[in-house]
Amino acid sequence: MSWLPSLQTETPEAGFELAIKLSRMAVKITQPDDDARNRMRSDYSNNADSLTMASGVVAANFQTVAQANNFWR
Amino acid sequence: MSWLPSLQTETPEAGFELAIKLSRMAVKITQPDDDARNRMRSDYSNNADSLTMASGVVAANFQTVAQANNFWR
Amino acid sequence: MSWLPSLQTETPEAGFELAIKLSRMAVKITQPDDDARNRMRSDYSNNADSLTMASGVVAANFQTVAQANNFWR
Amino acid sequence: MSWLPSLQTETPEAGFELAIKLSRMAVKITQPDDDARNRMRSDYSNNADSLTMASGVVAANFQTVAQANNFWR
Amino acid sequence: MSWLPSLQTETPEAGFELAIKLSRMAVKITQPDDDARNRMRSDYSNNADSLTMASGVVAANFQTVAQANNFWR
Amino acid sequence: MSWLPSLQTETPEAGFELAIKLSRMAVKITQPDDDARNRMRSDYSNNADSLTMASGVVAANFQTVAQANNFWR
Repeated sequence: MSWLPSLQTETPEAGFELAIKLSRMAVKITQPDDDARNRMRSDYSNNADSLTMASGVVAANFQTVAQANNFWR
Repeated sequence: MSWLPSLQTETPEAGFELAIKLSRMAVKITQPDDDARNRMRSDYSNNADSLTMASGVVAANFQTVAQANNFWR
Repeated sequence: MSWLPSLQTETPEAGFELAIKLSRMAVKITQPDDDARNRMRSDYSNNADSLTMASGVVAANFQTVAQANNFWR
Repeated sequence: MSWLPSLQTETPEAGFELAIKLSRMAVKITQPDDDARNRMRSDYSNNADSLTMASGVVAANFQTVAQANNFWR
Repeated sequence: MSWLPSLQTETPEAGFELAIKLSRMAVKITQPDDDARNRMRSDYSNNADSLTMASGVVAANFQTVAQANNFWR
Repeated sequence: MSWLPSLQTETPEAGFELAIKLSRMAVKITQPDDDARNRMRSDYSNNADSLTMASGVVAANFQTVAQANNFWR
């Protein structure tokens, strides 16, 4: 089963969660070592600019997902 | 009740507020600890570049919301 | 009266000014204290990278406004 | 006469020049003092990351201008 | 054979992999030396902000690929 | 002859090369001195974040070029 079978979601909220998943998968593919990613977690989750950057990536992916769903109109 | 029932808003101003909400929710999902986020608040809210970065995330989300509302034309 | 009654503007130049307004409002909503924002002004207005970042936010908002106005064609 | 009478240009190259103009005008409006901007010029024009950031802003504005011109097709 | 024969892919997951390929090719064209790129790998793959930045580039490319595939609807 | 006669290209790969050209031209117009740009080359070509940033600019320009070519569908 693919981790990304479709960009279509039932609801906007599910679309936002998919955007977060896309953002994290790009990180995971670049750094596949779970321990290495976990070690970094306390760094970025306590740094305002890191969190803002992460939010920016989610925003970019959410735009794609929202378009794919015709904005759930 | 979903925190994001729809991308449609009555007015452009309400759409801008939704864009801010989307920007903050991505941060909140990454760092769910309210105290941790509050500790960072004085950092980024007094740093010009942090505020500009945050404004950039809002801009990206506002583009999505504005498209979803056909720009309130 | 809303600070954002519409994304439509008469001219491209007015649309660019609206993009600047959107960029600043996101900052103002994050840091509502006028004095705090004024203290930061000399920092970012004399830093090339800060100004470039700010210009990037305006570019993102101008894209939204230009689309909303069908590029004033 | 407006500094931005239209987003339409005769050629793609003129559109790229307009994208650069838009990028610089956002800086100029934020920092209107010519001397202050000139003092920063040697900083960013000799810093690779500053130039890359500036190129990113031009890219965002060029997307808007290219759309406005239906990509000069 | 071109490294980029088409933007069309069979599935969303294959489209995401293409977005990663596009992100890496731009790096490879700028720094063609394999050893130089490998030396940098441990740096960015253990730095949260570097990974977030990389995820942002993938997000931008994925938007292009998703549009090219009409979002695999 | 213009350096940018058209955004249309025969193939996706040629479109990606045009996106790189657009990214470099914005830098060249901001810093026209060839020696100055060459001096910076070793800096950014050996810095992972600089390369990621450059890849992000290419991604933005590639989106424009791909749209201009209707994604070579």
